[in-house]
Amino acid sequence: MLANSFKKVGLATIRNNKFYLSNTLASQKQFIQKFNMTTGASKKVLHEGNINKNVRNVEYAVRGALAIRAEEIREALENGEKFPFKSVVGCNIGNPQQVGQKPITFFRQVAALTEVPELLEGENLAKTEALFPKDVIARAKEIISHVKTVGAYSHSQGVPYIRQRVAKFTEERDGFSADPNHIFLTSGASAGVQLGLQLLIEHSNVGVMIPIPQYPLYTASLALFDGKPVPYYLDESSDWGLNVDDLRASLKKSRDEGVDVRSLVIINPGNPTGQCLTFDNMKEIVQFCKEEKLILMADEVYQVNIYQPETRPFHSFKKVVRSLGPEYDDFELISFHSISKGMIGECGRRGGYFELCGFDPKVIAQIYKIASVSLCPNVPGQIMVDLMLHPPAKGDESYDLYHSELNGIYESLKRRALKLCAAFNSLEGVTCNEAQGAMYLFPQITLPAGAVEAAKAQGTQPDELYCMELLNATGVCLVPGSGFGQKDGTYHFRSTFLPPENLFDDFIGGIKQFHENFLAKYN
Amino acid sequence: MLANSFKKVGLATIRNNKFYLSNTLASQKQFIQKFNMTTGASKKVLHEGNINKNVRNVEYAVRGALAIRAEEIREALENGEKFPFKSVVGCNIGNPQQVGQKPITFFRQVAALTEVPELLEGENLAKTEALFPKDVIARAKEIISHVKTVGAYSHSQGVPYIRQRVAKFTEERDGFSADPNHIFLTSGASAGVQLGLQLLIEHSNVGVMIPIPQYPLYTASLALFDGKPVPYYLDESSDWGLNVDDLRASLKKSRDEGVDVRSLVIINPGNPTGQCLTFDNMKEIVQFCKEEKLILMADEVYQVNIYQPETRPFHSFKKVVRSLGPEYDDFELISFHSISKGMIGECGRRGGYFELCGFDPKVIAQIYKIASVSLCPNVPGQIMVDLMLHPPAKGDESYDLYHSELNGIYESLKRRALKLCAAFNSLEGVTCNEAQGAMYLFPQITLPAGAVEAAKAQGTQPDELYCMELLNATGVCLVPGSGFGQKDGTYHFRSTFLPPENLFDDFIGGIKQFHENFLAKYN
Repeated sequence: MLANSFKKVGLATIRNNKFYLSNTLASQKQFIQKFNMTTGASKKVLHEGNINKNVRNVEYAVRGALAIRAEEIREALENGEKFPFKSVVGCNIGNPQQVGQKPITFFRQVAALTEVPELLEGENLAKTEALFPKDVIARAKEIISHVKTVGAYSHSQGVPYIRQRVAKFTEERDGFSADPNHIFLTSGASAGVQLGLQLLIEHSNVGVMIPIPQYPLYTASLALFDGKPVPYYLDESSDWGLNVDDLRASLKKSRDEGVDVRSLVIINPGNPTGQCLTFDNMKEIVQFCKEEKLILMADEVYQVNIYQPETRPFHSFKKVVRSLGPEYDDFELISFHSISKGMIGECGRRGGYFELCGFDPKVIAQIYKIASVSLCPNVPGQIMVDLMLHPPAKGDESYDLYHSELNGIYESLKRRALKLCAAFNSLEGVTCNEAQGAMYLFPQITLPAGAVEAAKAQGTQPDELYCMELLNATGVCLVPGSGFGQKDGTYHFRSTFLPPENLFDDFIGGIKQFHENFLAKYN
Repeated sequence: MLANSFKKVGLATIRNNKFYLSNTLASQKQFIQKFNMTTGASKKVLHEGNINKNVRNVEYAVRGALAIRAEEIREALENGEKFPFKSVVGCNIGNPQQVGQKPITFFRQVAALTEVPELLEGENLAKTEALFPKDVIARAKEIISHVKTVGAYSHSQGVPYIRQRVAKFTEERDGFSADPNHIFLTSGASAGVQLGLQLLIEHSNVGVMIPIPQYPLYTASLALFDGKPVPYYLDESSDWGLNVDDLRASLKKSRDEGVDVRSLVIINPGNPTGQCLTFDNMKEIVQFCKEEKLILMADEVYQVNIYQPETRPFHSFKKVVRSLGPEYDDFELISFHSISKGMIGECGRRGGYFELCGFDPKVIAQIYKIASVSLCPNVPGQIMVDLMLHPPAKGDESYDLYHSELNGIYESLKRRALKLCAAFNSLEGVTCNEAQGAMYLFPQITLPAGAVEAAKAQGTQPDELYCMELLNATGVCLVPGSGFGQKDGTYHFRSTFLPPENLFDDFIGGIKQFHENFLAKYN
């Protein structure tokens, strides 16, 4: 049974067969403590027992029990409560600016001026020029000439000008033509992924192949839209590589069990696993999808977070598909991108886009219709997409600053990735692959039998126990591997390498000390 | 049968029983012409026949065939094509800044400075003070001290500080306490409404009472989440009033037919109908919900668009519920608000919130969980919610400008509402209620039998035919009443009164001329 294969990988949605599970309950219990309600649930019209069961089935570990506990500690620290540490270090979410990453100056300056276009003209202009570089002013003018105002609903698919700019970007990136009418601006990549999955899931037996481990947006959205996750494993022993034979075996197994598998999700570079696929591997994947009639959903939000550019450069799936020639003109691909990642890290603004290749125009019309019910993606987020894809060029007044900011972040991320990886590998019973891309490490940890038993007694997962004790002891917040899925009997956690570089020694020291104590406690 | 009762009111989702209907097909056909695909649909993995049927069932007239045609004309005009008019006048969407409404200066100035916080300090400050008033700078500083950066994901429920500010606002508005933990910031009210409905719809037999006519977000979302719309009629002959006996009759009828009705949606002030409910009427509605165990969803996004403040002031449902005493402490209410309407009209930014009253904490935890899958509402939109609810106070440097801008828009909206209403009433066969609130008029129009037949022959609705011919002749874009629901055999259209006041005579003149020609053509 599929359910069993899920049980093996420890996927939350499947552990959840009976709709009530420790992980959820634990997180809910903590959450509920924050509410001070005078009346019980029984009198209510709406209660946990009669809400949409798909909603109930959703699990989302990135913002689960650990994140909620971290928030509690943060508040307690602010209120002067004492802990064995000074601050919470959030390594649980890819949220760079929350942990101190500075925004790119040019992007923010243009964004500011698009808010107040009257600063771009008349007697204000001279004063504006005292504060903003000329290319910032010119760019803001250019954007406002097309967008008119950030305060009006745009076209539901996104401002036509910005879609043209996205098309220009992917054309230059891939060397193949792009159609602005096949591009949808979104409120972050997540909104696009959810829309795509919602569209695909015709009925509850439709399956979507997802990597294990995976970013839990996929299992959460599949639960919400009542589709079936069909897991395929990434190979930890070869840098979280993806083997097409494994894809084929997983697909066959699910189809044999009667699941109507229609799509394959690839996260490249990987989240939480950080691998970056080779061109040849991607070619095989595309061929596999064509043979098996699978829509390819390519989550490419980490496309510029590439740390081994010589050996593992990023290639877009669109480039791979188009490189395969006219036979693949019909191939159905959705590619997602975001302003939240890369070196820009503008998570709070919620911007992104997806590009459709080879889609039936009637299906595109349906996507447009659903997008239109939400009116439009937020316009400041759309503008940031344009800026991210078309930063200052060499010779522009802002170029040097832009380049040094971008490069500073990039080089530091590379250093932090290596340093944290080495630190994890130095811990007893921990092994960690290097990050070829993205923002995360996903080390495997061998937990003492005592810890596994203690977790069982507490009704929690062993890796969640480890992470919760780490948080309470050091303030470092990770996400347990069980939230992403992992092979039965293995334990992992995901850590970003985003905390400020000057805090790294401290925070690594804290983890090392905790780890020793934890082993001593449970061995 | 329920389906029949829907057929009577002409509701698109129900006309849609067989999933293929003229209205959708017409709009899709036009949309598809814009795509230039070389291959047919039949080869595709994903096609119209195998997508999520709920997606297929959605109809959304506000951005339907009329809006798409208007967009085509706009593009054609830009490319120099000739039409019998100079520009498209978009009266189809409540999108004030698109048709020339100026943003409120204070709001935008603060928004700009939150983008570039380094302008608030050091040697920049003097230059910034040359461009921005002191209270703008102080406010931006205050916000940044809590929000830190607009570039980081916030708490999934919204920045705690901003939720406190929302709570403060509703406390001051209603005179009853509010809990920031029961407030969720959202990407516009639509996102909140969709989340609420998604939660409520346990299975496909769950019914939600909606007004007829209604803003089609409700039918669209019910189709998307596979719930049942349960219509109740607003009484056109008494200013689109709401009669609780009608609510009761409609509820009984649906429950007798086996529908599991769980919620009542009230749009107050009304969209598209513009009525504003009296306190006593609202009390009856709340009592009705309590008796019948219905969750009340109150769409209160037009709460400051009130044009008869002496006779029809706005009251929030929360105030009504709390006024009814401790017996109603348990009463379950969701109230929605938005930055897109009012005099602020910041549609493009996508901001809003909902406040929960009397909800089961476990249900709130579920809402939080779903909100967290989308990470957070966009932070610039959250900031605008704070600004809208807490504008400059008397004595602040920006107060006079703020007040004159706000009041200028408000008084002009009042004048435009009256003028357009009078113009509609002057047309042969047209009657129109005055707007007590909101941004729309919803006149009834008697169409000649010839027009009804012509529409039938074209496979379209008679009111859609009228609106399409009006658009092609004058550039004025309305939304046909069939998109909102209307009593069988009656025809309406919705028009905003948002076009600039100086264009009003021209645009009304165009409608009058067209109307005469239309009657002459079909009589």
